[in-house]
Amino acid sequence: MAHIALTEGLPGIRGLLVFSPATTKPLCDLVQVLLTGPHTLTAAEREMIATYVSSQNDCHYCQTCHGSTAAEHLGGSLADYELIRQVTQNYEATLLSDKMKALLAIAGKVQKDGKQVTAEDVARARQSGATDKEIHDTVLIAAAFCMFNRYVDGLATWQPDDPVIYREIGKQTAQLGYVGRDYKKPLQAIAAQGKAEI
Amino acid sequence: MAHIALTEGLPGIRGLLVFSPATTKPLCDLVQVLLTGPHTLTAAEREMIATYVSSQNDCHYCQTCHGSTAAEHLGGSLADYELIRQVTQNYEATLLSDKMKALLAIAGKVQKDGKQVTAEDVARARQSGATDKEIHDTVLIAAAFCMFNRYVDGLATWQPDDPVIYREIGKQTAQLGYVGRDYKKPLQAIAAQGKAEI
Repeated sequence: MAHIALTEGLPGIRGLLVFSPATTKPLCDLVQVLLTGPHTLTAAEREMIATYVSSQNDCHYCQTCHGSTAAEHLGGSLADYELIRQVTQNYEATLLSDKMKALLAIAGKVQKDGKQVTAEDVARARQSGATDKEIHDTVLIAAAFCMFNRYVDGLATWQPDDPVIYREIGKQTAQLGYVGRDYKKPLQAIAAQGKAEI
Repeated sequence: MAHIALTEGLPGIRGLLVFSPATTKPLCDLVQVLLTGPHTLTAAEREMIATYVSSQNDCHYCQTCHGSTAAEHLGGSLADYELIRQVTQNYEATLLSDKMKALLAIAGKVQKDGKQVTAEDVARARQSGATDKEIHDTVLIAAAFCMFNRYVDGLATWQPDDPVIYREIGKQTAQLGYVGRDYKKPLQAIAAQGKAEI
């Protein structure tokens, strides 16, 4: 049970977004700017950074939603979902680009403590072609998910287990982004939409 | 030296806010909603939560800016600054209200990992009069400063030592809030304004 009275049937951050409309707008605006729209990192790559940090913070809801969103941006195949799973397990052993591995290494340091990011970490990213903006955005995405994960877990929100739910959330998010969404939609409706497509 | 090319003379998050205007607005909007304006927790109390979390994350810039802002909201006396210092050292031993101590205990758990917040922590806060909104906002302030601290430290921003600078930042922030500010103002101008008043 969540630590505060939230609308039933709304998983993870959705109940919190409905509980606190005044903070919902800046939170959704932030993640919209960071994870969607034109960028030299693809939306899938930015969602991978969010997913990896959320997995390091052991936030089931965030890592599964953003992992699904990343996989859906890639095409939504079994292989896409498997790649995302491998990224959370051992990204250095995947076929991701050297630049993405260097950025994920920075994100992993930020997850622990910003001060752990070294000049060598940044030099590695730059040598593999990362720009200042890509390094900046990687740090801010990692930092932002240290916030979102704590927000979702710190209030003990309801986090369902059914992978169908998360796949549907991922598909919707990959398509619609984060701003102007109806987060009041109960889980049954999300699940029904997902199950209807299986 | 910062990990990316930032405008010289802008301390802490200020260089980052100028570097990345697209993320500045949601970040400033978020902190404005959380830390300023009418609320059942005073602005000083909310700044104390931000300061305590920043001190637990060992972020010199954030803990000193927000500590000064909290002290200035209280009146800006030596005793006010001393109280804030005591809050970061051992808040349970201060004369803060039971409610504030219970909320700081929750914030301290969130700083480590949201999942550490227990039903007992929340019951303690509620028994001392905390509302759902106060508990929610405490968790989100704590989570947000886990983001801001990592953003500021993860990019190795310049964090001056001179307490006069931080006192001036605190005075300006207590008076003006976070939105619509000119963060391009170089440090020399902030310092000069502070020193002129000594």
